[in-house]
Amino acid sequence: MPQATLIDGKAIAAALRAQIATEIAGIKAVSGLVPGLHVVLVGDDPASRVYVASKEKLAVEVGMNSVAHRLPADTSQETLLATLAGLNADDAVDGILVQLPLPRHLDTAAVIDAIDPAKDVDGLHPLNAGRLAGGKVDPEHLLVPCTPLGSMLLLRSVLPSLSGLEAVVIGRSELVGRPVAQLLLQADCTVTIAHSRTKDLPDVVRRADIVVAAVGRPHFVKGDWIKPGATVIDVGINRMPDGKLAGDVDFAEAVEAAGAITPVPGGVGPMTIACLLRNTLTAFKARRGG
Amino acid sequence: MPQATLIDGKAIAAALRAQIATEIAGIKAVSGLVPGLHVVLVGDDPASRVYVASKEKLAVEVGMNSVAHRLPADTSQETLLATLAGLNADDAVDGILVQLPLPRHLDTAAVIDAIDPAKDVDGLHPLNAGRLAGGKVDPEHLLVPCTPLGSMLLLRSVLPSLSGLEAVVIGRSELVGRPVAQLLLQADCTVTIAHSRTKDLPDVVRRADIVVAAVGRPHFVKGDWIKPGATVIDVGINRMPDGKLAGDVDFAEAVEAAGAITPVPGGVGPMTIACLLRNTLTAFKARRGG
Ligand SMILES: NC(=O)c1ccc[n+]([C@@H]2O[C@H](COP(=O)([O-])OP(=O)(O)OC[C@H]3O[C@@H](n4cnc5c(N)ncnc54)[C@H](OP(=O)(O)O)[C@@H]3O)[C@@H](O)[C@H]2O)c1
Ligand SMILES: NC(=O)c1ccc[n+]([C@@H]2O[C@H](COP(=O)([O-])OP(=O)(O)OC[C@H]3O[C@@H](n4cnc5c(N)ncnc54)[C@H](OP(=O)(O)O)[C@@H]3O)[C@@H](O)[C@H]2O)c1
Repeated sequence: MPQATLIDGKAIAAALRAQIATEIAGIKAVSGLVPGLHVVLVGDDPASRVYVASKEKLAVEVGMNSVAHRLPADTSQETLLATLAGLNADDAVDGILVQLPLPRHLDTAAVIDAIDPAKDVDGLHPLNAGRLAGGKVDPEHLLVPCTPLGSMLLLRSVLPSLSGLEAVVIGRSELVGRPVAQLLLQADCTVTIAHSRTKDLPDVVRRADIVVAAVGRPHFVKGDWIKPGATVIDVGINRMPDGKLAGDVDFAEAVEAAGAITPVPGGVGPMTIACLLRNTLTAFKARRGG
Repeated sequence: MPQATLIDGKAIAAALRAQIATEIAGIKAVSGLVPGLHVVLVGDDPASRVYVASKEKLAVEVGMNSVAHRLPADTSQETLLATLAGLNADDAVDGILVQLPLPRHLDTAAVIDAIDPAKDVDGLHPLNAGRLAGGKVDPEHLLVPCTPLGSMLLLRSVLPSLSGLEAVVIGRSELVGRPVAQLLLQADCTVTIAHSRTKDLPDVVRRADIVVAAVGRPHFVKGDWIKPGATVIDVGINRMPDGKLAGDVDFAEAVEAAGAITPVPGGVGPMTIACLLRNTLTAFKARRGG
């Protein structure tokens, strides 16, 4: 049995960013405009700071206008909503992202509801989730959560057509599992959503031509759950006691069965920010033409 | 093998309407208020006229205020949107339903978007679809499409717990298949969505403890697709050349294998209007308390 194809998320994300940079340069040459991405960070969670810094850096690299709004940890709901209202009203702002998690005293759902859906580059506003769930709009024209979008791009890099394939998504979070299931359905897969109440999970996964693991448990999906030749997308990012990152899939085992598989790190991870930039460009084009 | 339990949608719908009537009588006794359901009908499609008339009749029977707004077939988009704006602004209006399909010159998506989501008793506004798809709000507190809601009530009438059961939904329409899949997921089923691109559909259906058929093809699901003892919900309503109604399931065959099954007519059909009334009461309570 030959080993699986490694899906190189780092390279695919870099190629996507390069393509976005070219498109932005073209838009700028014609109109003088560039997309503006605004990230709102409340408090000083160290992990969030690192994420926001990488988002800023990569946004600038592709030629966007990138602004981070750093608000103190004790920012009130009212002040945060006022900040968002200002960004909603500002025509130079194409994308608004509120870095999650927010401090506990803030009402996350109300904050997300307050983002203009046309600028919601995280794809988390219920109006955007509803359009995706309705299945009537081509997801290319929607703002879709970034990690699911990135997972689909990785799948498409190895599978010419997804139509009629059996996909099993393990996990049903609002951020990953549910939207990735919607995108797989839109791509004409037969889609199964599994979760902590699923019985005989190994048997359910064994049906799958495509496995997407978004569980949050290191090495959870075993090699003998993988149908030979299946494509495995490992969304998990778990920090191990030794400081290394591990996916939700037992990579060493699964690589022997899969036809193609994403590593962790270097798989889905790098796609997330690249897709955030892509969403910002999508929002720019929808709002300002180009 | 004993024959399947027949799930009597007619009786269950009647019991639900009686329960709604009791609740409305109680509210009225305390506050003098009753829920108001407003149905907007554009044009004179004969089937739509019949549906609207039954909705009016049953709404009155449970003690609601029921108003039908009958607009001519050549009503402009502008006029229809103005009608909806008036209903949105009127505090005595709890539920607004635009009878579909609309005449072709009207933009259905824009019309649905124009309904106040808090009064969207058909559950079709993308904001309501998005809240359902997000999975964070108990569907009891949401306005959910009526036929899927009715299908769930029928399932619960025969299954004490749905948790961990394998559900297969055949069909992925915005109106039926997709929302019923969301509701089954929320009830902790392992959910598979199948459709016209699904390969080996009989094998996929054979896994199911719960089958929901929403295909629009008479007698499509065969008896030997049904796992012995499974619960079968037949959403299909197909008019046969002899004038009779047929479901999407080959009832004569499936009743031999299933543990419980809905007939057509008399299964899901009567639940739809009962659930519309339930949604109107839900909207009333959310908006006006009680
Ligand atoms: N690559 C990226 O950029 C990126 C982005 C976001 C997240 N992630 C990673 O992806 C993973 C999932 O993230 P998330 O936000 O979706 O997590 P989450 O909100 O915690 O959801 C985890 C899901 O896994 C299910 N689950 C838990 N234990 C299970 C079990 N024993 N068997 C089957 N299903 C089980 C849960 O089921 P119930 O619903 O029944 O509880 C839940 O639906 C995490 O490792 C996270 O770090 C990566
Ligand atoms: N009881 C009620 O009150 C009520 C309410 C609404 C509807 N209905 C009835 O329910 C049925 C479905 O309604 P709908 O609005 O959901 O219909 P629809 O919009 O036409 O959707 C039909 C679905 O069935 C799928 N399908 C078609 N042929 C198939 C095949 N050969 N194998 C597998 N899947 C197939 C389609 O797949 P693709 O997406 O791949 O095309 C589509 O997703 C109809 O009979 C309708 O009259 C009843």
